[in-house]
Amino acid sequence: MSSESAHGRQVNFGPGPAALPTSVLEEASKGILNFQGTGIGISEISHRSKEFVAYLENLKSLIREQLDVPESHAIMFTQGGGSAQFSAVAMNMLSRYRLLHPNAKAEDIKMDYVVTGRWSEKAAEEARRLGGGSVNVVVDSRKYSATGKLFDNIPPHEKSVYNFSPDPALICYCENETVDGVEFSHEPTSPAAFPFDLLPDAKLLPLVADYSSSFMCRTIPRLADHAIIFAGAQKNVGPAGLTILIVRKDCIVDVDAAVKFGASPVPLTLSYKTLFDTNSLYNTPPVFSMYVTGLVLEHLKALGGMPYFEELNRKKFTAVYEVVKKGAQQGTFQLKVKEGSESWMNVVFDIPDEAAKKRFLDDAKKNGLLNLAGHRLVGGIRVSLYNAITLEQTLQLVDYCNKFLEDELKSKAQ
Amino acid sequence: MSSESAHGRQVNFGPGPAALPTSVLEEASKGILNFQGTGIGISEISHRSKEFVAYLENLKSLIREQLDVPESHAIMFTQGGGSAQFSAVAMNMLSRYRLLHPNAKAEDIKMDYVVTGRWSEKAAEEARRLGGGSVNVVVDSRKYSATGKLFDNIPPHEKSVYNFSPDPALICYCENETVDGVEFSHEPTSPAAFPFDLLPDAKLLPLVADYSSSFMCRTIPRLADHAIIFAGAQKNVGPAGLTILIVRKDCIVDVDAAVKFGASPVPLTLSYKTLFDTNSLYNTPPVFSMYVTGLVLEHLKALGGMPYFEELNRKKFTAVYEVVKKGAQQGTFQLKVKEGSESWMNVVFDIPDEAAKKRFLDDAKKNGLLNLAGHRLVGGIRVSLYNAITLEQTLQLVDYCNKFLEDELKSKAQ
Ligand SMILES: Cc1ncc(COP(=O)(O)O)c(C=O)c1O
Ligand SMILES: Cc1ncc(COP(=O)(O)O)c(C=O)c1O
Repeated sequence: MSSESAHGRQVNFGPGPAALPTSVLEEASKGILNFQGTGIGISEISHRSKEFVAYLENLKSLIREQLDVPESHAIMFTQGGGSAQFSAVAMNMLSRYRLLHPNAKAEDIKMDYVVTGRWSEKAAEEARRLGGGSVNVVVDSRKYSATGKLFDNIPPHEKSVYNFSPDPALICYCENETVDGVEFSHEPTSPAAFPFDLLPDAKLLPLVADYSSSFMCRTIPRLADHAIIFAGAQKNVGPAGLTILIVRKDCIVDVDAAVKFGASPVPLTLSYKTLFDTNSLYNTPPVFSMYVTGLVLEHLKALGGMPYFEELNRKKFTAVYEVVKKGAQQGTFQLKVKEGSESWMNVVFDIPDEAAKKRFLDDAKKNGLLNLAGHRLVGGIRVSLYNAITLEQTLQLVDYCNKFLEDELKSKAQ
Repeated sequence: MSSESAHGRQVNFGPGPAALPTSVLEEASKGILNFQGTGIGISEISHRSKEFVAYLENLKSLIREQLDVPESHAIMFTQGGGSAQFSAVAMNMLSRYRLLHPNAKAEDIKMDYVVTGRWSEKAAEEARRLGGGSVNVVVDSRKYSATGKLFDNIPPHEKSVYNFSPDPALICYCENETVDGVEFSHEPTSPAAFPFDLLPDAKLLPLVADYSSSFMCRTIPRLADHAIIFAGAQKNVGPAGLTILIVRKDCIVDVDAAVKFGASPVPLTLSYKTLFDTNSLYNTPPVFSMYVTGLVLEHLKALGGMPYFEELNRKKFTAVYEVVKKGAQQGTFQLKVKEGSESWMNVVFDIPDEAAKKRFLDDAKKNGLLNLAGHRLVGGIRVSLYNAITLEQTLQLVDYCNKFLEDELKSKAQ
């Protein structure tokens, strides 16, 4: 009996909070009562205890090593999820801009947003709400969809398409659009790769990436050129409640000093300087989420780190996409994302026949394959293939899809 | 063998993250692998699943019932801890004030802070940083300490002492000062009770209380008269990462509408309206912390709710304080808090002889009594007696103190 079935565990293809490795959860179920033999459970331990501080240092090292984060960048932890970072990145980067350009007028300060789906759209919306500069939509990918309305593509890699400002306070993009299933390609030569070559000239690019749903599923292209990378833990690396930040040190600025040049005051817990100066221990951190994230990253390292997961995730994605394409050819499934722009982590497609879709989801559930419904805003099907989903589980789903497609063909033939 | 010793658990008198009931952690160690037979662990489950939403509703009901929260007040959950609320209460209440007084000038808007220790001082400091009004220190309790420098008392209950503004945007106090061990009394007739009778006249008082370290250890006096009560979970009710809010509905305002009257824009995740409109599910909540908090509150209810814990905590506090006073009479211990102003949750005292203090802490540790050192800012000893500390464990500590005092007497006599 596998340890999955020992606990009656099903396969969870949900988009986040998402599956975690069973072996990690088994370990956590002990740590919750007694952490490292301290006689105190991990949820009860002081965040200032030497045991926890050592754990935190190791957590940072695991991220630094696995992602090859240079010393120019700090690794920090906070709460509030990706959504709180939508506010924080704008506020911290506007403060930085004010310190660099003390005489700037708010209306002249540009905040560049590359909009390729629901999440980058939300990020831009929050920057607009907070003000302090004006949002420049670098590109809206809907313009490049067949209907002009869908987030179904990474826009053409052309200078005339990406309208970057010459000296923006920040340039935001979302590496993987969890809802729409659209992702920048990691093949540098792909036309769907992020257009690093089209960015404005700057030694210290104010480039911000939302990696919430693709953090540590493979290496991060051009990581060192980023000002900020942020991600909620709850997809690939841990339980909800923890946000991971990789911030280039010139973006950790004295937000209070920026106020006299016109910046808005930044709530203390959203200021990167607060986090940096206190080693992410300004206030009580989400200790349990950090603990489980540490276990997940140890597990990831033991299996072979990023090269291993890149290969594994490629296999998983390829296997699922193959059956999705087959289903599309047969007319049962419908592709939703332009070829080359597909997300590795969230395979999004549709089953236009409502009855068939219901059958697909209901029978999947009976087979222990859960949480395959698409996001409520877009419907259809979404298969999330985060790190904790094994190849075996992926193939279980592929088999299920194959069988479903056969049955549909048969019932149509009758 | 008790279940504590089965897991090698020690007694954790730490100030937070703090001890949780062993039976709750045993239950959580199962839920982490499989939540309510869903086949999915609690850290992996969608916050929008019907199982989790039902759990959330029950969590709210448990708080509403146990604390007798009227329908005029909403119960909400967020991340960021008490510290993020220092910013959020000021920003939301200033937005409210702007909507009520569209023509107010920032310099005329008062934010009243009752300062009785390190935490209320920090809260006032954050309001000052954020601006948008001016901070009025209603009273600084150091003025009423013998040396003029110590947070060792609740100030005299007199009109001339509490300098409330006539129509402030908010009035903040900290019910229990975790670092200094000072707390407002819950006996309405005590001179150390919160001076409700001295507050300005208003039907809807803008009264904000930080209950971070005394939430659900007993009933909350005059709860219905409060605008906002906030508390991090990590002392009495759950793991770090979750913040609990009780907010009167007139304080859930359209923060965006207030901007045109001069309010600062509020980051979306700090806006109470965002939380309220989405049933605390605007973005991914700290699912695991909410789960354990639910288990703790079920446990609390099963034992008899607030009346039971009020009685239990009184016994615990009384027993510890008795031995502390005895030690003070003997000259080994030193009291730090004025009589009547002592915290039930955090008993703070000193052992002036450094060698004796080291012996006290080291031997306590050998006896399985952990985390008794005072806060790094104040030193000395701090015994945190949150709900999960049992009477038995408390008496273990009292016995230990008695033995320590005897040994000290003997060694002095030699
Ligand atoms: C790409 C992306 N960004 C941001 C978020 C928001 O994260 P959170 O729910 O932690 O605020 C999500 C959540 O799914 C996401 O997928
Ligand atoms: C009374 C009080 N308020 C606020 C805080 C800050 O809480 P957090 O660490 O969750 O930000 C604490 C933390 O101990 C506290 O005791």
